[in-house]
Amino acid sequence: MSFNHFDASGNAIMVDVSQKNPTMRTAIAGAVLTLKPETVHAIVEGKVAKGDVLGVARLAGIAGAKRTPDLIPLSHPLALHHVAVDFQVDASQGRIEIRATVRAFERTGVEMEAMTAATVAALTVYDMCKGSDKGIVISDIALIFKEGGKSGTFQRTAP
Amino acid sequence: MSFNHFDASGNAIMVDVSQKNPTMRTAIAGAVLTLKPETVHAIVEGKVAKGDVLGVARLAGIAGAKRTPDLIPLSHPLALHHVAVDFQVDASQGRIEIRATVRAFERTGVEMEAMTAATVAALTVYDMCKGSDKGIVISDIALIFKEGGKSGTFQRTAP
Amino acid sequence: MSFNHFDASGNAIMVDVSQKNPTMRTAIAGAVLTLKPETVHAIVEGKVAKGDVLGVARLAGIAGAKRTPDLIPLSHPLALHHVAVDFQVDASQGRIEIRATVRAFERTGVEMEAMTAATVAALTVYDMCKGSDKGIVISDIALIFKEGGKSGTFQRTAP
Amino acid sequence: MSFNHFDASGNAIMVDVSQKNPTMRTAIAGAVLTLKPETVHAIVEGKVAKGDVLGVARLAGIAGAKRTPDLIPLSHPLALHHVAVDFQVDASQGRIEIRATVRAFERTGVEMEAMTAATVAALTVYDMCKGSDKGIVISDIALIFKEGGKSGTFQRTAP
Amino acid sequence: MSFNHFDASGNAIMVDVSQKNPTMRTAIAGAVLTLKPETVHAIVEGKVAKGDVLGVARLAGIAGAKRTPDLIPLSHPLALHHVAVDFQVDASQGRIEIRATVRAFERTGVEMEAMTAATVAALTVYDMCKGSDKGIVISDIALIFKEGGKSGTFQRTAP
Amino acid sequence: MSFNHFDASGNAIMVDVSQKNPTMRTAIAGAVLTLKPETVHAIVEGKVAKGDVLGVARLAGIAGAKRTPDLIPLSHPLALHHVAVDFQVDASQGRIEIRATVRAFERTGVEMEAMTAATVAALTVYDMCKGSDKGIVISDIALIFKEGGKSGTFQRTAP
Repeated sequence: MSFNHFDASGNAIMVDVSQKNPTMRTAIAGAVLTLKPETVHAIVEGKVAKGDVLGVARLAGIAGAKRTPDLIPLSHPLALHHVAVDFQVDASQGRIEIRATVRAFERTGVEMEAMTAATVAALTVYDMCKGSDKGIVISDIALIFKEGGKSGTFQRTAP
Repeated sequence: MSFNHFDASGNAIMVDVSQKNPTMRTAIAGAVLTLKPETVHAIVEGKVAKGDVLGVARLAGIAGAKRTPDLIPLSHPLALHHVAVDFQVDASQGRIEIRATVRAFERTGVEMEAMTAATVAALTVYDMCKGSDKGIVISDIALIFKEGGKSGTFQRTAP
Repeated sequence: MSFNHFDASGNAIMVDVSQKNPTMRTAIAGAVLTLKPETVHAIVEGKVAKGDVLGVARLAGIAGAKRTPDLIPLSHPLALHHVAVDFQVDASQGRIEIRATVRAFERTGVEMEAMTAATVAALTVYDMCKGSDKGIVISDIALIFKEGGKSGTFQRTAP
Repeated sequence: MSFNHFDASGNAIMVDVSQKNPTMRTAIAGAVLTLKPETVHAIVEGKVAKGDVLGVARLAGIAGAKRTPDLIPLSHPLALHHVAVDFQVDASQGRIEIRATVRAFERTGVEMEAMTAATVAALTVYDMCKGSDKGIVISDIALIFKEGGKSGTFQRTAP
Repeated sequence: MSFNHFDASGNAIMVDVSQKNPTMRTAIAGAVLTLKPETVHAIVEGKVAKGDVLGVARLAGIAGAKRTPDLIPLSHPLALHHVAVDFQVDASQGRIEIRATVRAFERTGVEMEAMTAATVAALTVYDMCKGSDKGIVISDIALIFKEGGKSGTFQRTAP
Repeated sequence: MSFNHFDASGNAIMVDVSQKNPTMRTAIAGAVLTLKPETVHAIVEGKVAKGDVLGVARLAGIAGAKRTPDLIPLSHPLALHHVAVDFQVDASQGRIEIRATVRAFERTGVEMEAMTAATVAALTVYDMCKGSDKGIVISDIALIFKEGGKSGTFQRTAP
């Protein structure tokens, strides 16, 4: 097995995609936050009066997708055409699921942009809740779906 | 329960820390990558000849810590005085554990910087291995230890 | 009259503040958006169901304050200790007033950070409303109050 | 009235422009600085010997246009093909008018890039003059002209 | 002789390239570090056990290429499709030669991206070695080769 | 010889400076541009009418100093208190000397900030002149002077 982010001598490179034609690319990544149930209740109930935790996290995720080339050293700067971040909340289980969708007409995939969006959204929820809940865990950061490009469609099977 | 990143009207703010005295702050955060065992073998064996995956990820994590105020909307810009990112690899289990340590003499804690460093390091490993292993999962992103500041020391108990 | 951002030869410099002692600095800047009354009504009424325009703009303003040294060429990088952005809405007049407050214990003032926060918040409201209201105007971007430092307190008199 | 930066549930999104074809886009935005007449005289007369205030502000505006996707949360990263910032100075009236022009062959308009360029140029003039003139006001930030894209040409009528 | 980064009035602009068609562009830039021979020996011998100085510098150079539009005021933001940074080491002469290659299908050349990559890689080597070798000099930063675009191919003749 | 940017296992770290006391730090770095004499003449004579090449480069250098922690992977984010960039021009020799001075009251030195300022200023001159002079070379990037901190004063002897 070899890694295509290194050349034949083992040196890190930004892989040459100049000969590839742009195609429509979509990627969906997920992340899961596990918090105390009462923290999730406070997030849900407080939305209007006490502060919109998930609204802040959603914006951080969208902005995070745009910062991907600054964060991931060998990633290509891409012209993102769509970013969305959604949350599914299960207060009784103390669980918040995040889905980040990214689309672009580009020469290489947008998996890292979707992964970064989901992750930064999760970190931002963590930041706002850490004062009262230090045991929060972020898990299940994974690619859920991708489409477009030579390697075709990928759909994660349920874990 | 209320969130201190919002004011009494529920509006997001960067919390006022101007009246706090700087103290020495340390935070350690962790993350775990689950990959195919053969991917981990390739990472370990290929280090010298095929490319240093973990070396790239370590640098990305350190740089990521410095980008925290750009990523986490309500975080304070802090003068980081130390950042380190370490890996513990268990190839037979297909498992890479990441530990990020951040230290600063500051008015507020460096938890988010440590969390961001661990996370960006994990995303970078993912980026370099995703070509041959699409099922990689990042999990167990959590605060492991913190010290300094009014809320004192926190040590995560084993999960 | 001369400008202290240039040296005796007229060359731009980042002014030397190394000999100044840090003091507590506060600055409040304002901006005004003039929109169609129906646009302001839609912002106010749609907050919960249709999207929180002012919530997005508030976060953009706070993040904008942190980007000040990247935007204003001769400004110093400062350790901001507090940022808040507030809105006062008069729907019948089609008017949204923005107030941005910044505080830091620093060697130089935080006026530019407050001005930038107010301005970026205003530009973000503009961005979200420009689809249906192309005649929006941003005005009255000005320093309202400052405190701290050698030049003392400034309070803008009503225009 | 609804806002296209939010989805049907009221969640902020980066709007999907992947299905749009790129077309040539031009936008011109304006801003006005009101200063003491003697400040404007000092700017004009000092250009060569005392420091080129407007030259610094022009560069800040051009750089600001490039930072738009970092500042405006739901904006798309665009490949800018032309940016220019011009000043019209009326010293007797204490008035500096700014015009920022941006052009790109893109899937969405460049209004925000032009608005940001004009605004950052104005803030930079403010920064350099605030030492001797605390009452400076920035106003009339507005779109003056746009061309290209489905919504066609817009020309602001004189206020 | 005039400079195309200024308009007819001598004002700095980002040159309008919107009417140019994208073509394949390649640029190679070089830089040379002169260090004490023992410093170069330590770099070469220490790679595995003591730390991979050139590996860190390579990543910094690649990341630096992506930061070019933030650093060079009148440069265009470009979609880079390939970046590589290589080193040729002559320990007995205390000399490290850097070659940075950048490729993109774009409306304007990628010379500045290659120059920036080579330079940032050199500065990063400097940073890591300055503790024990304060006399390090970086020289010979120059364009070595370019291809693509109206001005055609350029090949530097040996100095 | 070992490098203090790596730990005992050879892993890259941001060195821990949290136990150091801040002291006043100054660094001066230099760079030299070698151009065709007629290019230098055009720069000098064109300043007012055709465009201020060195004025643009000076601002880029100052801004570059502020970007140092983004560019140099293991550098600490520092609160810069003074940055200046000066040019000495010898048109007949086709030579422009750059001097960048940086000062800060900090826990670690500002050499990299001065080196980066000088280098980015040189690259920016290159960018503006490369259209008519492809053979420009940047050389002699070196530390000229530093003061403050445990290692004391350094003064480069003439090369």
